Order: sequence, then C-alpha cells, then structure tokens
Amino acid sequence: MSDTPFNTLAEFQDLLEIQPQENRDACQAASARNGQLTKPPSALGRLEDLAIWYAGWRGVAAPKIKSPQVVVFAGNHGIAAQGVSAFPPEVTGQMVLNFQHGGAAINQMCKTFGADLSVHGLDLDHPTDDFTKGPAMSESSVIAALQTGWNAVDDDADLLVAGEMGIGNTTSAAAIACALFGGKADNWVGRGTGVTDEGLALKAHVVNQGLAANPTAAGNGLEALRCLGGRELAAIAGAIASARAKSIPVILDGFICTAAAACLAVARDGALDHAVAGHLSAEGAHGVLLKNIGKQPLLSLGLRLGEGSGAALAIGILQGAVACHSGMATFAEAGVTDA
Amino acid sequence: MSDTPFNTLAEFQDLLEIQPQENRDACQAASARNGQLTKPPSALGRLEDLAIWYAGWRGVAAPKIKSPQVVVFAGNHGIAAQGVSAFPPEVTGQMVLNFQHGGAAINQMCKTFGADLSVHGLDLDHPTDDFTKGPAMSESSVIAALQTGWNAVDDDADLLVAGEMGIGNTTSAAAIACALFGGKADNWVGRGTGVTDEGLALKAHVVNQGLAANPTAAGNGLEALRCLGGRELAAIAGAIASARAKSIPVILDGFICTAAAACLAVARDGALDHAVAGHLSAEGAHGVLLKNIGKQPLLSLGLRLGEGSGAALAIGILQGAVACHSGMATFAEAGVTDA
Repeated sequence: MSDTPFNTLAEFQDLLEIQPQENRDACQAASARNGQLTKPPSALGRLEDLAIWYAGWRGVAAPKIKSPQVVVFAGNHGIAAQGVSAFPPEVTGQMVLNFQHGGAAINQMCKTFGADLSVHGLDLDHPTDDFTKGPAMSESSVIAALQTGWNAVDDDADLLVAGEMGIGNTTSAAAIACALFGGKADNWVGRGTGVTDEGLALKAHVVNQGLAANPTAAGNGLEALRCLGGRELAAIAGAIASARAKSIPVILDGFICTAAAACLAVARDGALDHAVAGHLSAEGAHGVLLKNIGKQPLLSLGLRLGEGSGAALAIGILQGAVACHSGMATFAEAGVTDA
Repeated sequence: MSDTPFNTLAEFQDLLEIQPQENRDACQAASARNGQLTKPPSALGRLEDLAIWYAGWRGVAAPKIKSPQVVVFAGNHGIAAQGVSAFPPEVTGQMVLNFQHGGAAINQMCKTFGADLSVHGLDLDHPTDDFTKGPAMSESSVIAALQTGWNAVDDDADLLVAGEMGIGNTTSAAAIACALFGGKADNWVGRGTGVTDEGLALKAHVVNQGLAANPTAAGNGLEALRCLGGRELAAIAGAIASARAKSIPVILDGFICTAAAACLAVARDGALDHAVAGHLSAEGAHGVLLKNIGKQPLLSLGLRLGEGSGAALAIGILQGAVACHSGMATFAEAGVTDA
C-alpha cells in the first residue's frame, strides 16, 4: 500500500481538494459534434448529456467504452450482531464465494455488459466495531479500507462501478445519511434484505444510538465514514476517489454505495462530478439521499440488491449513449438534409 | 407473399383471434426458480417480472437471449406535403441510406447490444394518400405493408424491436391515437422532430381533418391503421403479430411504434401481451398512449428519435434480467444460508 497517496484521513482530505476536473475542451468538442449528428436536436434526450459528460471526463470528443470495471467490496459489521438484517452475518462470506464462483447477480450483469469483475473481501473475520458503542473503525482501519478501494481500480478501466456486500450495511448507510444530512432516523432506515416492522424499528434505534455515540460524525464526511461506515463503504469511497484521479467516470449503485459516495461529496464539494447515479433503489430513502447529492438516477426498476447490480445494469445505458455519440454519422457525412 | 396467412384485413383480424398465449408451465417453473436464486426476495425488482414474462413467452424456465432482432420500416406520408414536420419528406429516403451505411443511432444501438438489424423502405417513391381527404391506404396497400412486416421477422429471433422512420409520422400516430382513444387532437400531437407552435397547431388541424374524413377509423384498430397510418406503421403491426405467432417477445419503441401497436390492442384484447414498453418518449402524448394499452415503460430518458432506438436501448435491460434469472446460482447450489 506504500504507493497510495494518503496514509491519514487528513491526507485523503487534502487529496480530494486537488483532484482533476473535467476537460472543458473535450466537452465543447463533444457538444459541437452532438449538434451535427443525424438526428433532430436533443432527440436522444439524456443520452446526449451523458455522452458529453463522459467525453469531458475522458478528455476525448468521441470516446469509446471498451473496458468497464466492476469492483465489489465485502465487509462485516459489528452491528450485525444486533439482528438488524434478515440474513445472518455469515452470508457476507458465503456471497463472496458466490461472486468468486460466478453465481451472483453481479456476475451475470458483468457478463452481459462485458465488464471486468473483481471481488475484495475486507478482513471478513474481523467485523467493524459496533457503532452504537463508539466508532466502527479506527483511523488506521478506515485508511486501510480506503487504500484497498483506491488500489482496486484498474488504470486501464474506462468506466467504474463499485458495489458492496455486507450483512447489516443498510443500517450503516442509514446512519451515515442521517449524520450527514440530518432528519429522523426512521426516515433513513428501510427494509434492506427484508426485515419486519420490528426489525425496522430496531434499525432506527441502532442508528440513533450510533449518532449519539459518534458526535464527530455529524456533518463530517470522512468522520461519518469512519465512525458509522464499514470497510466495504470506505473501499467504495476510495475507489470513487481513485477513479477521479485516473479520469474514469463512475456509475453509482444503490443506497449503500450512494451513502459511501455522499461522504466524499460532503468532504469536498464536487467530489462526485465524475459520477452519475445508475438507478433508484427500492430502499426507501435512496431517492432523498440522491437529491442530497444532486444526482438523478438513470434507471428506476425497483432493484434493491446491492453488489453493484443496478449500476452495472446502467453500464448498458452509458454504452448506448457513447456508441451513438461517437459512432453516428453527421448530416454532412450521411448526405441527410438538416432541418 | 403467398405464404403470409392473411390476404385481407378480415383474415388478419381472424388471425389475431387465434394467436398463441404464453406457456403457463414455463411461467410457473421460472417463478419457482426465481424464488431460489441467491438474492433476497424481489431484490431484483422489475427485472424478476421481466424474466418470468420472457420465460413464459419463450416457453422455457431458464431462457437465454442470443438473437435479438431490430427491424426498421420506413414509409412516406401524403400529409408530409402539408408541412407537418420540421424536416422535408426526402429525409425519409436519406435516412434509409444512413441506416444501410451504419450511420444512424439505431445502428450503434444494435452494435452495442448485439442485435441483428434489417431495414425495409416501403414503396418510398409513393407516399400514402393524404388522410385529410380520405383513407391513407387502400386495403391492398395496408395488407402489403402488414405482409412486409410479417415476413421481416426472423424465425430464429428471440427478441424483437420494430422501429420506424417516416417524415410526418408523428402526425399519423397522433391521428390513430385520437381515433382509437378519443380526446382532443391538441392533446395527442407533439413536437415530433421539432416543429414550432404554428406547426403544432397545424398538426392538430390535420388530425381533426383526418378524423372527419375517415369516420370508419373511430375505435376500430385495423381501420385506423389503414385510414390514418402509414406503410411503416402497418409493417410494425404486422411484425408484432408475426412475433406473437413465433413466440418472440417484443419491446415497443416510442409514440409511433406504440400507436401502431395500439391498433392491434384495440383490434384484439391481449394482442400485446407478448410486448413490453421499452421507454417513455419525450413526445408528449406517449405516456397517455401507453396507459391506454396498459404498459409501463422500462426507461424514461427523454428520447424522441424513433428508429426503434429507445426500445433497442431497453434490449440491455431485458438481457440483464434474463441473464440474472438463468445464470444465477440457487441458495442450495451456492451454499448460501437463506433468510
């Protein structure tokens, strides 16, 4: 990990301050190209904005998507012992094996859209600490997870999806959202993998306890990530920041991924400018969380699985948008009369 | 065309009455399989319904999508001479060449999702008659177009998108919608390729004239198609019916494709049970039209291009849904603890 450009949260914060911006020349060139393609103005709707955004972050007027990468991070949570999930904690490790053997939803999505998949189990035998009693992670723990995420991103990738698996992590995500954006815990917790009404009340109680036990998390992106997050959430944040450093656009997944991403957005305004929201999760509070970070989802199909599955499904949307932008003929090339 | 099982509209109507239904055993087997996959119940949301629906129409519990087909039909409209489009009528033929040379949006979509594309220009040198003065097509003309559509569907296709190109055809689609479902012409016409406010008023006027000149179209699916449609709309209807006969599920495109499909739905209740709506077009009345045929769109990204482009983009959604359904491991196979 010695080649990671941060070894403390303060250094990670410093790094967020100096991350690259989109290439405005490429944006302008892409926008000009878009206006000449054989279609009525704006007839490809949001696909046009997506293609121009993608071009800007790749720094090329007519880019291609050749090497999408999906990274899935898995972590175990101290709060899982409180029974906040419909599934027992051992499922995290079992699902990592399922990912490695090709049997999960994310494997099928990656095959469908030609994405490379890598899976990282983060210290699964050592759950994070129970955040109702103090911080989930020490600074060295959260840094290690951020570094795993940072190093997981391929230099050659041209699109990134960061997914997660971790029994208990919708509760962690709800706690982060509540710490960052306020409001009642009840409004941030949801059914997750399918808890009962009682389970839902327990999740809200756990979130409230977590906020009380971790006052430094309130409104502080990186402290919320450390105190209320999990290793897989920190790894997602590290991967998103790493993608920015490498000019790789990102598709955000559902509630948990968005909570991890929101820690970056609160830590540094604009830290998610290179990211789009892949889908609106059925996890109830995802829509509000997306609004808080100013993102409008590409898809809304009722998914609430995690693993990066919804974002991976949206890879197809980006591929279609960029293929049209870069592959279509102009009016002049095709000899078609303009309006 | 001698092998087409209809030579009159009455025969086509008879054929619609006896089309195959979904395979209920396959549906049940697919539903049972879905319940055993390594994910929380319903966590893939609408993708689960889509996969089960697709399995039912293919008659297989764990189907694959290997050969999606996109057919694009192009036709010219007598009413185009009235100036109802922002583009001149010669653009229809120019765009057919663009399709054939690989330069249009639909070409890029087909490449992205591995779909076979075929393009059919329908008697482009002879626009349909101006429907403000009487029927757009004679019975023999509409039958010829229906037969072209019927014969365009590959026996080996496992998913069909039927797209269109035809300067003036949003006006034709609006007239069909108004004839089939009532309401004011103003509420069915839209900007199409980008007409002005004056153009919009002209479109409504043309629709009203068309309805007055073709009283047999009111509430009559096949008469509306003949009197107010165009050759490309009739070909779409023929292709959708042909797909049903061959147990090939269909993804509907935007406003014009949906208007053509609606003619089938009005002619025969359930005639679109093998079809899903690929997307919600930015053409204003598309949402109401979809509600009238009981379809909820998969995507809503502001497209309004036609060519089958929105439906082709939704091929990726179906591919993802079916890949998860048929490729995921069960809890037992993966050794994952169920809830």
